[in-house]
Amino acid sequence: MAASVPTRTIGRLSLYRRLLGNLIADGVEHVYSHQLATMGGVTAAQVRRDMMSVGYSGSPKRGYEVTALAGSIGNFLDASHSEPVALVGVGNLGRAIMAYFAGRRPRLTITAAFDSDPYKLNRVILGCRCHALSEAGAVIGQLGIMTAIVTVPASAAQDVADQLVRAGIRGILNFAPIRLRVRPGVYVEDIDMTMSLEKVAYFARQNAETRSIPEAAVI
Amino acid sequence: MAASVPTRTIGRLSLYRRLLGNLIADGVEHVYSHQLATMGGVTAAQVRRDMMSVGYSGSPKRGYEVTALAGSIGNFLDASHSEPVALVGVGNLGRAIMAYFAGRRPRLTITAAFDSDPYKLNRVILGCRCHALSEAGAVIGQLGIMTAIVTVPASAAQDVADQLVRAGIRGILNFAPIRLRVRPGVYVEDIDMTMSLEKVAYFARQNAETRSIPEAAVI
Repeated sequence: MAASVPTRTIGRLSLYRRLLGNLIADGVEHVYSHQLATMGGVTAAQVRRDMMSVGYSGSPKRGYEVTALAGSIGNFLDASHSEPVALVGVGNLGRAIMAYFAGRRPRLTITAAFDSDPYKLNRVILGCRCHALSEAGAVIGQLGIMTAIVTVPASAAQDVADQLVRAGIRGILNFAPIRLRVRPGVYVEDIDMTMSLEKVAYFARQNAETRSIPEAAVI
Repeated sequence: MAASVPTRTIGRLSLYRRLLGNLIADGVEHVYSHQLATMGGVTAAQVRRDMMSVGYSGSPKRGYEVTALAGSIGNFLDASHSEPVALVGVGNLGRAIMAYFAGRRPRLTITAAFDSDPYKLNRVILGCRCHALSEAGAVIGQLGIMTAIVTVPASAAQDVADQLVRAGIRGILNFAPIRLRVRPGVYVEDIDMTMSLEKVAYFARQNAETRSIPEAAVI
Protein backbone atom coordinates (compact mmCIF):
# COMPACT_ATOMS: atom_id res chain seq x y z
CA MET A 1 0.00 0.00 0.00
CA ALA A 2 1.56 3.26 -1.12
CA ALA A 3 0.30 5.17 1.94
CA SER A 4 2.55 3.06 4.17
CA VAL A 5 5.77 4.62 2.82
CA PRO A 6 7.19 6.71 5.71
CA THR A 7 7.54 10.46 5.30
CA ARG A 8 11.32 10.28 5.74
CA THR A 9 11.58 7.90 2.78
CA ILE A 10 9.64 10.35 0.60
CA GLY A 11 11.98 13.15 1.71
CA ARG A 12 15.07 11.10 0.84
CA LEU A 13 13.65 10.11 -2.57
CA SER A 14 13.13 13.80 -3.32
CA LEU A 15 16.77 14.42 -2.29
CA TYR A 16 18.12 11.52 -4.41
CA ARG A 17 16.27 12.84 -7.43
CA ARG A 18 17.97 16.20 -7.05
CA LEU A 19 21.37 14.55 -6.58
CA LEU A 20 20.73 12.47 -9.71
CA GLY A 21 19.76 15.65 -11.55
CA ASN A 22 23.17 17.11 -10.66
CA LEU A 23 24.88 13.93 -11.95
CA ILE A 24 22.90 14.06 -15.21
CA ALA A 25 23.99 17.69 -15.65
CA ASP A 26 27.61 16.54 -15.14
CA GLY A 27 27.23 13.81 -17.78
CA VAL A 28 27.52 10.93 -15.26
CA GLU A 29 25.71 7.76 -16.45
CA HIS A 30 26.10 5.33 -13.55
CA VAL A 31 26.27 5.70 -9.78
CA TYR A 32 26.75 3.18 -6.95
CA SER A 33 24.50 3.18 -3.91
CA HIS A 34 27.46 4.06 -1.68
CA GLN A 35 28.25 7.13 -3.82
CA LEU A 36 24.65 8.33 -3.65
CA ALA A 37 24.75 7.61 0.09
CA THR A 38 27.80 9.83 0.61
CA MET A 39 26.24 12.67 -1.39
CA GLY A 40 22.98 12.35 0.55
CA GLY A 41 24.49 11.90 4.00
CA VAL A 42 22.89 8.46 4.57
CA THR A 43 24.11 4.84 4.53
CA ALA A 44 24.38 2.73 1.36
CA ALA A 45 21.99 0.19 2.90
CA GLN A 46 19.45 3.00 3.38
CA VAL A 47 19.78 4.02 -0.28
CA ARG A 48 19.22 0.41 -1.41
CA ARG A 49 16.16 0.02 0.83
CA ASP A 50 14.73 3.33 -0.44
CA MET A 51 15.23 2.27 -4.06
CA MET A 52 13.26 -0.91 -3.37
CA SER A 53 10.31 1.35 -2.48
CA VAL A 54 10.31 2.72 -6.01
CA GLY A 55 10.88 -0.74 -7.52
CA TYR A 56 14.28 -0.01 -9.04
CA SER A 57 17.37 -2.20 -8.68
CA GLY A 58 20.82 -1.52 -10.08
CA SER A 59 23.46 -3.90 -11.35
CA PRO A 60 26.08 -4.83 -8.73
CA LYS A 61 28.79 -4.21 -11.33
CA ARG A 62 27.84 -0.83 -12.77
CA GLY A 63 25.52 0.55 -10.10
CA TYR A 64 22.31 2.41 -10.90
CA GLU A 65 21.62 3.95 -14.31
CA VAL A 66 21.33 7.62 -13.39
CA THR A 67 18.68 8.69 -15.90
CA ALA A 68 16.51 5.58 -15.47
CA LEU A 69 16.64 5.83 -11.68
CA ALA A 70 15.69 9.54 -11.75
CA GLY A 71 12.76 8.57 -13.99
CA SER A 72 11.63 5.80 -11.64
CA ILE A 73 11.72 8.12 -8.64
CA GLY A 74 9.77 10.70 -10.63
CA ASN A 75 7.09 8.14 -11.53
CA PHE A 76 6.83 7.24 -7.88
CA LEU A 77 6.81 10.76 -6.39
CA ASP A 78 5.00 12.82 -8.99
CA ALA A 79 1.43 12.92 -10.14
CA SER A 80 0.97 11.72 -13.71
CA HIS A 81 0.00 15.25 -14.71
CA SER A 82 1.10 18.76 -13.71
CA GLU A 83 -0.34 19.53 -10.30
CA PRO A 84 -1.66 22.87 -9.05
CA VAL A 85 -0.73 24.30 -5.64
CA ALA A 86 -2.38 27.11 -3.67
CA LEU A 87 -0.54 29.69 -1.55
CA VAL A 88 -2.20 31.72 1.20
CA GLY A 89 -0.53 34.94 2.40
CA VAL A 90 1.10 37.03 -0.31
CA GLY A 91 3.45 39.01 1.97
CA ASN A 92 7.25 39.14 1.79
CA LEU A 93 7.64 35.45 2.49
CA GLY A 94 4.75 34.37 0.27
CA ARG A 95 6.07 36.34 -2.69
CA ALA A 96 9.55 34.93 -2.15
CA ILE A 97 8.23 31.40 -2.17
CA MET A 98 6.19 32.09 -5.31
CA ALA A 99 9.32 33.45 -7.00
CA TYR A 100 11.39 30.52 -5.72
CA PHE A 101 9.07 27.82 -7.06
CA ALA A 102 8.15 29.57 -10.31
CA GLY A 103 9.22 27.14 -13.02
CA ARG A 104 11.39 25.12 -10.63
CA ARG A 105 9.27 21.97 -10.56
CA PRO A 106 7.08 21.93 -13.64
CA ARG A 107 4.99 19.14 -12.07
CA LEU A 108 4.11 21.38 -9.10
CA THR A 109 2.94 24.90 -9.91
CA ILE A 110 1.52 27.58 -7.63
CA THR A 111 -1.61 28.43 -9.61
CA ALA A 112 -3.77 30.25 -7.07
CA ALA A 113 -2.81 32.77 -4.39
CA PHE A 114 -5.02 34.04 -1.57
CA ASP A 115 -4.70 37.12 0.61
CA SER A 116 -6.91 39.23 2.84
CA ASP A 117 -5.52 42.55 1.53
CA PRO A 118 -8.24 44.03 -0.76
CA TYR A 119 -5.52 45.88 -2.70
CA LYS A 120 -4.06 42.56 -3.88
CA LEU A 121 -7.35 40.96 -4.94
CA ASN A 122 -7.75 40.01 -8.59
CA ARG A 123 -4.24 41.24 -9.30
CA VAL A 124 -1.79 38.87 -11.00
CA ILE A 125 1.28 38.60 -8.73
CA LEU A 126 4.30 36.70 -10.06
CA GLY A 127 2.13 35.10 -12.73
CA CYS A 128 -0.52 33.98 -10.29
CA ARG A 129 -3.98 35.45 -9.66
CA CYS A 130 -4.68 36.61 -6.10
CA HIS A 131 -8.11 35.79 -4.65
CA ALA A 132 -9.97 36.55 -1.43
CA LEU A 133 -9.85 33.67 1.05
CA SER A 134 -13.66 33.56 0.96
CA GLU A 135 -13.30 32.27 -2.61
CA ALA A 136 -11.04 29.38 -1.51
CA GLY A 137 -13.78 26.75 -1.69
CA ALA A 138 -14.77 27.69 -5.23
CA VAL A 139 -11.26 28.25 -6.64
CA ILE A 140 -9.65 25.19 -5.01
CA GLY A 141 -12.55 22.96 -6.02
CA GLN A 142 -12.58 24.27 -9.61
CA LEU A 143 -8.81 23.83 -10.10
CA GLY A 144 -8.71 20.49 -8.24
CA ILE A 145 -6.02 21.70 -5.85
CA MET A 146 -5.01 19.32 -3.04
CA THR A 147 -1.80 21.00 -1.78
CA ALA A 148 -1.43 24.42 -0.14
CA ILE A 149 1.39 26.57 1.21
CA VAL A 150 0.53 28.73 4.24
CA THR A 151 2.58 31.91 4.69
CA VAL A 152 0.23 33.98 6.85
CA PRO A 153 1.09 35.27 10.37
CA ALA A 154 0.74 32.81 13.27
CA SER A 155 -2.42 34.50 14.50
CA ALA A 156 -4.26 33.76 11.23
CA ALA A 157 -2.84 30.33 10.39
CA GLN A 158 -5.29 28.01 12.19
CA ASP A 159 -8.31 29.77 10.70
CA VAL A 160 -6.72 29.62 7.24
CA ALA A 161 -5.93 25.90 7.68
CA ASP A 162 -9.54 25.19 8.68
CA GLN A 163 -10.82 26.97 5.57
CA LEU A 164 -8.33 25.16 3.33
CA VAL A 165 -9.29 21.73 4.66
CA ARG A 166 -12.98 22.53 4.18
CA ALA A 167 -12.14 23.57 0.61
CA GLY A 168 -10.61 20.13 -0.10
CA ILE A 169 -6.90 20.62 0.69
CA ARG A 170 -5.21 17.37 1.83
CA GLY A 171 -1.62 18.57 2.39
CA ILE A 172 -0.28 21.82 3.89
CA LEU A 173 3.26 23.18 3.86
CA ASN A 174 3.08 25.50 6.87
CA PHE A 175 5.53 28.39 7.36
CA ALA A 176 3.55 29.99 10.21
CA PRO A 177 5.21 29.35 13.57
CA ILE A 178 2.33 27.44 15.16
CA ARG A 179 1.31 23.79 15.19
CA LEU A 180 -1.80 23.47 13.04
CA ARG A 181 -4.58 21.22 14.25
CA VAL A 182 -6.06 19.29 11.31
CA ARG A 183 -8.25 16.22 11.09
CA PRO A 184 -6.78 12.79 10.20
CA GLY A 185 -6.22 12.47 6.47
CA VAL A 186 -4.59 15.88 6.12
CA TYR A 187 -0.78 15.97 6.04
CA VAL A 188 1.06 18.98 7.50
CA GLU A 189 4.77 19.70 7.11
CA ASP A 190 6.23 22.67 9.03
CA ILE A 191 9.08 24.93 8.02
CA ASP A 192 9.96 27.23 10.90
CA MET A 193 12.72 29.54 9.73
CA THR A 194 12.95 31.51 12.99
CA MET A 195 13.35 28.35 15.04
CA SER A 196 15.99 27.06 12.63
CA LEU A 197 17.99 30.29 12.73
CA GLU A 198 17.81 30.41 16.54
CA LYS A 199 19.09 26.83 16.73
CA VAL A 200 21.98 27.57 14.37
CA ALA A 201 22.94 30.71 16.31
CA TYR A 202 22.81 28.80 19.61
CA PHE A 203 25.09 26.01 18.41
CA ALA A 204 27.42 28.42 16.61
CA ARG A 205 27.91 30.17 19.96
CA GLN A 206 28.45 26.83 21.76
CA ASN A 207 30.99 25.79 19.13
CA ALA A 208 32.85 29.09 19.39
CA GLU A 209 32.98 28.79 23.20
CA THR A 210 34.18 25.19 23.08
CA ARG A 211 36.95 26.23 20.71
CA SER A 212 37.99 29.15 22.90
CA ILE A 213 38.83 26.90 25.88
CA PRO A 214 42.64 26.97 26.14
CA GLU A 215 44.10 23.58 25.31
CA ALA A 216 45.95 23.49 28.62
CA ALA A 217 42.62 23.58 30.46
CA VAL A 218 41.44 20.48 28.60
CA ILE A 219 44.52 18.53 29.68
CA MET B 1 27.69 21.37 30.07
CA ALA B 2 25.56 23.57 27.85
CA ALA B 3 26.86 21.93 24.66
CA SER B 4 25.16 18.65 25.64
CA VAL B 5 21.63 20.02 25.13
CA PRO B 6 20.18 18.18 22.12
CA THR B 7 19.23 20.15 18.99
CA ARG B 8 15.57 19.11 19.31
CA THR B 9 15.40 20.65 22.78
CA ILE B 10 16.76 23.93 21.44
CA GLY B 11 14.15 23.84 18.67
CA ARG B 12 11.34 23.26 21.16
CA LEU B 13 12.57 26.05 23.45
CA SER B 14 12.45 28.43 20.49
CA LEU B 15 8.88 27.24 19.80
CA TYR B 16 7.79 27.63 23.46
CA ARG B 17 9.14 31.17 23.49
CA ARG B 18 7.01 32.06 20.50
CA LEU B 19 3.93 30.41 22.04
CA LEU B 20 4.60 32.37 25.26
CA GLY B 21 4.91 35.55 23.18
CA ASN B 22 1.40 34.90 21.80
CA LEU B 23 0.09 34.40 25.36
CA ILE B 24 1.71 37.65 26.53
CA ALA B 25 0.06 39.45 23.63
CA ASP B 26 -3.29 37.96 24.73
CA GLY B 27 -2.75 39.16 28.33
CA VAL B 28 -2.37 35.63 29.76
CA GLU B 29 -0.22 35.56 32.92
CA HIS B 30 0.02 31.86 33.83
CA VAL B 31 0.12 28.66 31.79
CA TYR B 32 0.27 24.99 32.78
CA SER B 33 2.76 22.61 31.20
CA HIS B 34 -0.08 20.58 29.68
CA GLN B 35 -1.50 23.71 28.01
CA LEU B 36 1.89 24.62 26.54
CA ALA B 37 2.23 20.97 25.49
CA THR B 38 -1.06 21.02 23.56
CA MET B 39 -0.11 24.27 21.80
CA GLY B 40 3.32 22.88 20.89
CA GLY B 41 2.20 19.40 19.89
CA VAL B 42 4.34 17.64 22.52
CA THR B 43 3.67 15.92 25.87
CA ALA B 44 3.43 17.77 29.19
CA ALA B 45 6.30 15.63 30.53
CA GLN B 46 8.42 16.81 27.60
CA VAL B 47 7.61 20.46 28.37
CA ARG B 48 8.61 19.96 32.03
CA ARG B 49 11.88 18.25 31.06
CA ASP B 50 12.68 21.03 28.60
CA MET B 51 12.01 23.71 31.22
CA MET B 52 14.47 21.99 33.55
CA SER B 53 17.15 22.63 30.88
CA VAL B 54 16.62 26.35 31.28
CA GLY B 55 16.42 26.06 35.07
CA TYR B 56 12.83 27.24 35.41
CA SER B 57 10.14 25.51 37.49
CA GLY B 58 6.52 26.53 37.82
CA SER B 59 4.16 26.24 40.77
CA PRO B 60 1.95 23.13 40.65
CA LYS B 61 -1.02 25.33 41.51
CA ARG B 62 -0.72 28.21 39.07
CA GLY B 63 1.60 26.79 36.42
CA TYR B 64 4.41 28.78 34.83
CA GLU B 65 4.56 32.57 34.97
CA VAL B 66 4.40 33.41 31.27
CA THR B 67 6.62 36.50 31.22
CA ALA B 68 9.24 35.08 33.58
CA LEU B 69 9.43 31.82 31.64
CA ALA B 70 9.80 33.63 28.31
CA GLY B 71 12.63 35.62 29.91
CA SER B 72 14.38 32.50 31.21
CA ILE B 73 14.21 30.84 27.79
CA GLY B 74 15.57 34.04 26.21
CA ASN B 75 18.49 34.10 28.67
CA PHE B 76 19.22 30.51 27.77
CA LEU B 77 18.85 30.73 23.99
CA ASP B 78 20.10 34.20 23.17
CA ALA B 79 23.48 35.80 23.28
CA SER B 80 23.79 38.49 25.95
CA HIS B 81 24.14 41.08 23.20
CA SER B 82 22.63 41.57 19.74
CA GLU B 83 24.24 39.09 17.38
CA PRO B 84 25.15 39.67 13.74
CA VAL B 85 24.34 37.14 11.02
CA ALA B 86 25.73 36.88 7.47
CA LEU B 87 23.72 35.88 4.40
CA VAL B 88 25.29 34.58 1.19
CA GLY B 89 23.30 34.70 -2.06
CA VAL B 90 21.13 37.77 -2.53
CA GLY B 91 18.72 36.27 -5.10
CA ASN B 92 14.94 35.93 -4.78
CA LEU B 93 15.18 33.62 -1.80
CA GLY B 94 17.98 35.54 -0.11
CA ARG B 95 16.12 38.84 -0.36
CA ALA B 96 12.95 37.21 0.94
CA ILE B 97 14.78 35.87 3.96
CA MET B 98 16.39 39.25 4.59
CA ALA B 99 12.94 40.86 4.46
CA TYR B 100 11.47 38.12 6.65
CA PHE B 101 14.04 38.45 9.42
CA ALA B 102 14.36 42.25 9.30
CA GLY B 103 13.36 43.42 12.77
CA ARG B 104 11.78 40.07 13.66
CA ARG B 105 14.39 38.97 16.19
CA PRO B 106 16.29 42.01 17.38
CA ARG B 107 18.89 39.71 18.97
CA LEU B 108 19.70 38.18 15.56
CA THR B 109 20.24 40.63 12.74
CA ILE B 110 21.46 40.02 9.20
CA THR B 111 24.22 42.61 9.08
CA ALA B 112 26.31 41.49 6.11
CA ALA B 113 25.23 40.09 2.75
CA PHE B 114 27.48 38.49 0.14
CA ASP B 115 26.89 37.89 -3.55
CA SER B 116 28.96 37.17 -6.66
CA ASP B 117 26.99 39.58 -8.86
CA PRO B 118 29.21 42.67 -9.38
CA TYR B 119 26.08 44.79 -9.86
CA LYS B 120 25.03 44.15 -6.26
CA LEU B 121 28.41 44.88 -4.65
CA ASN B 122 28.61 47.74 -2.18
CA ARG B 123 24.91 48.41 -2.60
CA VAL B 124 22.70 48.47 0.49
CA ILE B 125 19.94 45.90 -0.04
CA LEU B 126 17.12 45.77 2.52
CA GLY B 127 19.24 47.74 4.96
CA CYS B 128 22.25 45.49 4.59
CA ARG B 129 25.49 46.12 2.68
CA CYS B 130 26.33 43.58 -0.03
CA HIS B 131 29.97 42.45 -0.28
CA ALA B 132 31.99 40.21 -2.60
CA LEU B 133 32.53 36.73 -1.18
CA SER B 134 36.28 37.33 -1.39
CA GLU B 135 35.80 39.86 1.42
CA ALA B 136 34.11 37.28 3.68
CA GLY B 137 37.19 36.69 5.83
CA ALA B 138 37.69 40.39 6.52
CA VAL B 139 34.01 41.36 7.00
CA ILE B 140 33.05 38.32 9.11
CA GLY B 141 36.14 38.67 11.28
CA GLN B 142 35.65 42.41 11.76
CA LEU B 143 31.95 42.09 12.72
CA GLY B 144 32.53 38.96 14.84
CA ILE B 145 29.91 36.98 12.92
CA MET B 146 29.54 33.27 13.83
CA THR B 147 26.23 32.43 12.08
CA ALA B 148 25.52 32.44 8.33
CA ILE B 149 22.54 31.77 6.06
CA VAL B 150 23.35 30.17 2.70
CA THR B 151 20.90 30.88 -0.14
CA VAL B 152 23.11 30.21 -3.18
CA PRO B 153 22.38 27.54 -5.84
CA ALA B 154 23.36 23.94 -5.02
CA SER B 155 26.34 24.08 -7.36
CA ALA B 156 27.96 26.92 -5.39
CA ALA B 157 26.98 25.94 -1.85
CA GLN B 158 29.91 23.69 -0.84
CA ASP B 159 32.47 26.24 -1.99
CA VAL B 160 30.61 29.01 -0.13
CA ALA B 161 30.44 26.85 3.03
CA ASP B 162 34.20 26.20 2.87
CA GLN B 163 34.90 29.93 2.60
CA LEU B 164 32.52 30.74 5.45
CA VAL B 165 34.09 28.17 7.79
CA ARG B 166 37.57 29.51 6.96
CA ALA B 167 36.24 32.99 7.75
CA GLY B 168 35.20 31.87 11.26
CA ILE B 169 31.55 30.84 10.82
CA ARG B 170 30.48 28.13 13.33
CA GLY B 171 26.82 27.62 12.33
CA ILE B 172 25.15 27.55 8.90
CA LEU B 173 21.45 27.65 8.02
CA ASN B 174 21.55 26.03 4.59
CA PHE B 175 18.76 26.51 2.02
CA ALA B 176 20.75 24.98 -0.86
CA PRO B 177 19.50 21.48 -1.68
CA ILE B 178 22.79 19.67 -0.98
CA ARG B 179 24.32 18.17 2.15
CA LEU B 180 27.23 20.41 3.11
CA ARG B 181 30.43 18.75 4.31
CA VAL B 182 31.90 20.73 7.21
CA ARG B 183 34.49 19.91 9.83
CA PRO B 184 33.46 18.96 13.40
CA GLY B 185 32.64 22.04 15.46
CA VAL B 186 30.48 23.60 12.73
CA TYR B 187 26.71 23.14 13.05
CA VAL B 188 24.59 22.90 9.89
CA GLU B 189 20.79 23.00 9.76
CA ASP B 190 19.09 22.39 6.39
CA ILE B 191 15.85 23.84 5.10
CA ASP B 192 14.91 22.16 1.84
CA MET B 193 11.74 23.82 0.57
CA THR B 194 11.52 21.76 -2.62
CA MET B 195 11.78 18.49 -0.72
CA SER B 196 9.15 19.65 1.76
CA LEU B 197 6.71 20.69 -0.96
CA GLU B 198 7.21 17.40 -2.82
CA LYS B 199 6.50 15.47 0.38
CA VAL B 200 3.34 17.45 1.07
CA ALA B 201 2.10 16.98 -2.51
CA TYR B 202 2.81 13.24 -2.35
CA PHE B 203 0.88 12.73 0.89
CA ALA B 204 -1.94 15.04 -0.20
CA ARG B 205 -2.38 12.77 -3.22
CA GLN B 206 -2.26 9.63 -1.05
CA ASN B 207 -4.84 11.12 1.32
CA ALA B 208 -7.14 12.09 -1.55
CA GLU B 209 -6.89 8.55 -2.98
CA THR B 210 -7.57 6.92 0.37
CA ARG B 211 -10.64 9.09 0.80
CA SER B 212 -11.96 8.30 -2.66
CA ILE B 213 -12.26 4.55 -1.89
CA PRO B 214 -16.01 3.90 -1.64
CA GLU B 215 -16.99 3.04 1.91
CA ALA B 216 -18.61 -0.21 0.76
CA ALA B 217 -15.22 -1.40 -0.45
CA VAL B 218 -13.72 -0.88 3.00
CA ILE B 219 -16.38 -3.08 4.62
